[in-house]
Amino acid sequence: MSPLRLDGHGASRGTALGRARVRMPLTQDVAEKRIAAGAVDAELQRLHQAIESARTEMRELRQRLQGALPAEAGEFLDLHAMLLDDPELLLALDERIRSQRYSAAYALRVQRDTLAKVFEGMEDDYLRSRLDDLDHVISRINAFLHERPANVKGLAGEILVCENIAPSELAQLQSQGVVGIVTSAGSPLSHSAILARSLHLPLVVGASGALRRIHDGAVLILDGSSGEVTVEPGADDLRQYRQRQRELAREQRELGHLRSKPTRTRDGVDITLLANAESPEDVAQAHALGAHGLGLYRTEFLFLQRNGLPDEDEQFRHYRDAVLGMSGYPVTIRILDLGADKADRNGLVAGHEENPALGLRGIRLLRAHPRVADTQLRALLRASGYGPVRILLPMVSAREEILAFKRRVARLTAALRAEGHALAEQVALGAMIEVPAAAIALPGFIDQVDFLSVGTNDLVQYLLAADRNNEAVGELYSPLHPAVLQLLAQVIDTAHRHGTPLSVCGEIAGDPRMAPLLLALGLNAFSLHPGTLLEVRRTIRDCDHAGLRARADKLLQARDRRGIERWIAETAPSAP
Amino acid sequence: MSPLRLDGHGASRGTALGRARVRMPLTQDVAEKRIAAGAVDAELQRLHQAIESARTEMRELRQRLQGALPAEAGEFLDLHAMLLDDPELLLALDERIRSQRYSAAYALRVQRDTLAKVFEGMEDDYLRSRLDDLDHVISRINAFLHERPANVKGLAGEILVCENIAPSELAQLQSQGVVGIVTSAGSPLSHSAILARSLHLPLVVGASGALRRIHDGAVLILDGSSGEVTVEPGADDLRQYRQRQRELAREQRELGHLRSKPTRTRDGVDITLLANAESPEDVAQAHALGAHGLGLYRTEFLFLQRNGLPDEDEQFRHYRDAVLGMSGYPVTIRILDLGADKADRNGLVAGHEENPALGLRGIRLLRAHPRVADTQLRALLRASGYGPVRILLPMVSAREEILAFKRRVARLTAALRAEGHALAEQVALGAMIEVPAAAIALPGFIDQVDFLSVGTNDLVQYLLAADRNNEAVGELYSPLHPAVLQLLAQVIDTAHRHGTPLSVCGEIAGDPRMAPLLLALGLNAFSLHPGTLLEVRRTIRDCDHAGLRARADKLLQARDRRGIERWIAETAPSAP
Repeated sequence: MSPLRLDGHGASRGTALGRARVRMPLTQDVAEKRIAAGAVDAELQRLHQAIESARTEMRELRQRLQGALPAEAGEFLDLHAMLLDDPELLLALDERIRSQRYSAAYALRVQRDTLAKVFEGMEDDYLRSRLDDLDHVISRINAFLHERPANVKGLAGEILVCENIAPSELAQLQSQGVVGIVTSAGSPLSHSAILARSLHLPLVVGASGALRRIHDGAVLILDGSSGEVTVEPGADDLRQYRQRQRELAREQRELGHLRSKPTRTRDGVDITLLANAESPEDVAQAHALGAHGLGLYRTEFLFLQRNGLPDEDEQFRHYRDAVLGMSGYPVTIRILDLGADKADRNGLVAGHEENPALGLRGIRLLRAHPRVADTQLRALLRASGYGPVRILLPMVSAREEILAFKRRVARLTAALRAEGHALAEQVALGAMIEVPAAAIALPGFIDQVDFLSVGTNDLVQYLLAADRNNEAVGELYSPLHPAVLQLLAQVIDTAHRHGTPLSVCGEIAGDPRMAPLLLALGLNAFSLHPGTLLEVRRTIRDCDHAGLRARADKLLQARDRRGIERWIAETAPSAP
Repeated sequence: MSPLRLDGHGASRGTALGRARVRMPLTQDVAEKRIAAGAVDAELQRLHQAIESARTEMRELRQRLQGALPAEAGEFLDLHAMLLDDPELLLALDERIRSQRYSAAYALRVQRDTLAKVFEGMEDDYLRSRLDDLDHVISRINAFLHERPANVKGLAGEILVCENIAPSELAQLQSQGVVGIVTSAGSPLSHSAILARSLHLPLVVGASGALRRIHDGAVLILDGSSGEVTVEPGADDLRQYRQRQRELAREQRELGHLRSKPTRTRDGVDITLLANAESPEDVAQAHALGAHGLGLYRTEFLFLQRNGLPDEDEQFRHYRDAVLGMSGYPVTIRILDLGADKADRNGLVAGHEENPALGLRGIRLLRAHPRVADTQLRALLRASGYGPVRILLPMVSAREEILAFKRRVARLTAALRAEGHALAEQVALGAMIEVPAAAIALPGFIDQVDFLSVGTNDLVQYLLAADRNNEAVGELYSPLHPAVLQLLAQVIDTAHRHGTPLSVCGEIAGDPRMAPLLLALGLNAFSLHPGTLLEVRRTIRDCDHAGLRARADKLLQARDRRGIERWIAETAPSAP
């Protein structure tokens, strides 16, 4: 009998061989179990070890994630880490084991149910989400309680088969050892697909029937390029898989040759590739891959996951090192972009906000904390003595806000010079274009900025009124909307006419499939995570710039997503 | 000694005379108090009566609010009403009185603190807001426990003096009897000021020093036109106050004469005034004031505050009556616009969403509940047999969504005809323009709609990425941003070029101060709450349409809010 084959859409390159893990809903059922009086201490120790292991797992995962992803995608981990440190939860668990002689697992269940009840009595909307977080944390503790340490990463080497995958899950699944994902729904241009590509995690989407026809534990081969999924492969399939693996390895080696190659289209147009970074490792990688500078250096990681704020000197050393690390290339540093959706321990962000994405974040929040802003700006200005620093303002929505920051920077510059610091003659000040109003009203303030960086992730979210982390509107959240492309084209055009440097730093810039579209719209500077820099360079080198520009009108006339997707499919460059 | 005078900005017309209530923070301190065993039943009864009174207050307030405000502003009341009905809370209170012999007030305090502790042990962000709601409800119960019934509306006849006022507070304060408000900060073009005008609640903003110089209990006269606040007025001031009261009364009578007058500018251009409505009373008022139809009939009230959904017949009768109530004028009915921010008891909305404003709401939610959508559309189509019905789709972001609804309406129309119902030949289908992407991409789908309604409230919120109910970004949330005006002008222009009827239905349309600006942008149909219809009509009748249109370029060239405010000040019509 020949093996079953399912045809989906290739959404993230690479092949994977592994056993299927068909996703089942989480259950929390644990039977009541009491322990002997003499076993209490051992049970307490087991619990504490499991909690410590869960903490370590979170920490390692956070470490691995750092810089591997748009920063926002890992934040739920911070929340979970906070729950694991919650003294009241931990005391209550101890108490149940000590006084009531519950087993650790049963204590977890009872404590969880007790909290659930309190919530349920109160109000419906919020408790569910808090319970989800609690359940997640408890399920991790449970995993460590029950599993042999070697087996802890329960998904290692497996291929996840599910209906749909949330962007927020991808990095965690990969870190747990998942080697590939098959979904029965989804699109290769979805947010999750873009992230899977940036993680180099093979993904096949739209394999309808996958949930019905693939059984848990079945051996699968998936091909993230062709979209083919082979169930219980035969000898020939395995041979082909090995062959394909060798091809991909050769492709990777060839990609390595592009490290020192220019980012130049077939018809000789040079494109600037800048890197997004948020750690010294990112900076080193960016430099090694021949990035022309940093287009977005995030600074949130200096402020989160710690008690107490970094002082001026600590920040200065950090920024200076990033500048030195890029040896003369411009380094664009975004000032603190916190909001109520971030797990900040220092009391900077507002308490609860109904809609944190529409709340006090970015420069709005910094205006409420002028001393924090001044400390960071001073550190940045001092770093400018060591190489070209560009200061980037997040969440700008109006001309007034830029003028206020320019005055602030001028005042701090004068003060630092008076203190004897050597600063650059001129430190460039730029604005993120991510609030739609800023994109539309750009002609009214472009004279006040030295450069622009378009944050397409947030811009798309606001333009479409679709939270990019909300799976329920995941279908809507997409840069492939006529309004997004029209506004992007308009912003790029305004910047070119004024001679103002502009780059795009959202996920779209790091996705090789989107490169032809961005070139068509006139973009000449991409800022992206180093992880996909070479792939984007390769795609750009395969592109005919004049040809793409000539097809921009057709792209901008598309009236719906399908029209844009058709344009992308028709325009994909074929390697020469 | 002559009385102290403070100069603020007049933000909402009308004068008020009353004692100052300087706003102090709420405190919840109640001393421990136990009661005698024999007093338990009486104490339980006191508590239950207080809770019942609080319920009645909420209900009455909700009733008074209905239609008096943009619907969203009253929703927090629904949440509070749910808390008052929460069985676990009520049982816990009874238990504390019965078993522990706590006084009702002390039981409230202890129960509140117990819940607070559980929350505080868990996670910080959400609990604070849930606690705020709980505290509010408890403070209302306490008020009824302690106060003589006659004195319950503790603010009656008083003038609130505070730093700033939240839009969400205004209606409740007015219903508690507040006759005027003085704030030391704020702007006459703020969201709160717009709402105060729609409530006809006198408001003076920016009276710096008010908190310092006005003492609790002082007698004040405030003039919401001139912005003057007189502290401890003398005999002359009181005479002037009476005189001003007479003038305002005369003005009101004169306004009444405008009921039967056309909405025509001085140079003879006719403007359409439609009404926003959400109750039969609104419809009657709209008709009586000479509205040319309903531009926005909200249907959420049919679905909220009840268990179980309204069936087709119930809805049909309701829509039919609205149509009959407008005797031949078009009635624009918006289909259900629920989201996770609404207190829905029927399980329609998603559970918790991190950013409900960017989540599953409007037609996005209806697509997930096709039977609910079909029932409502059938009822609407049946009502079309009784007069011109226009169906309005909320939260449209793309052409695909409109096409999907058109197919749905066509299918239902055919089915209803087959069942023998008499429907209108053609039922107009229109789109709300409130998602920025829809505004920008309008030329790509305008051929698919029969009319448009611009929801400036949400449009502004998304364009500026500023939650309109979040006080922390209240300064940012404003229609007076160049991007808002430019996009509005562009949308109006696109509609005119295609001959597609367009009206604006946000708060801006009901604010007489904004009417010249909207006329300048080319708007010829306003949809507004009947409460300010005559004032807007009067302003429009004072306007020179050609002159305003000629000044549109200058308005659209403004680069910041101050420029726009200057234009408004320079352009305000002077009554002939």
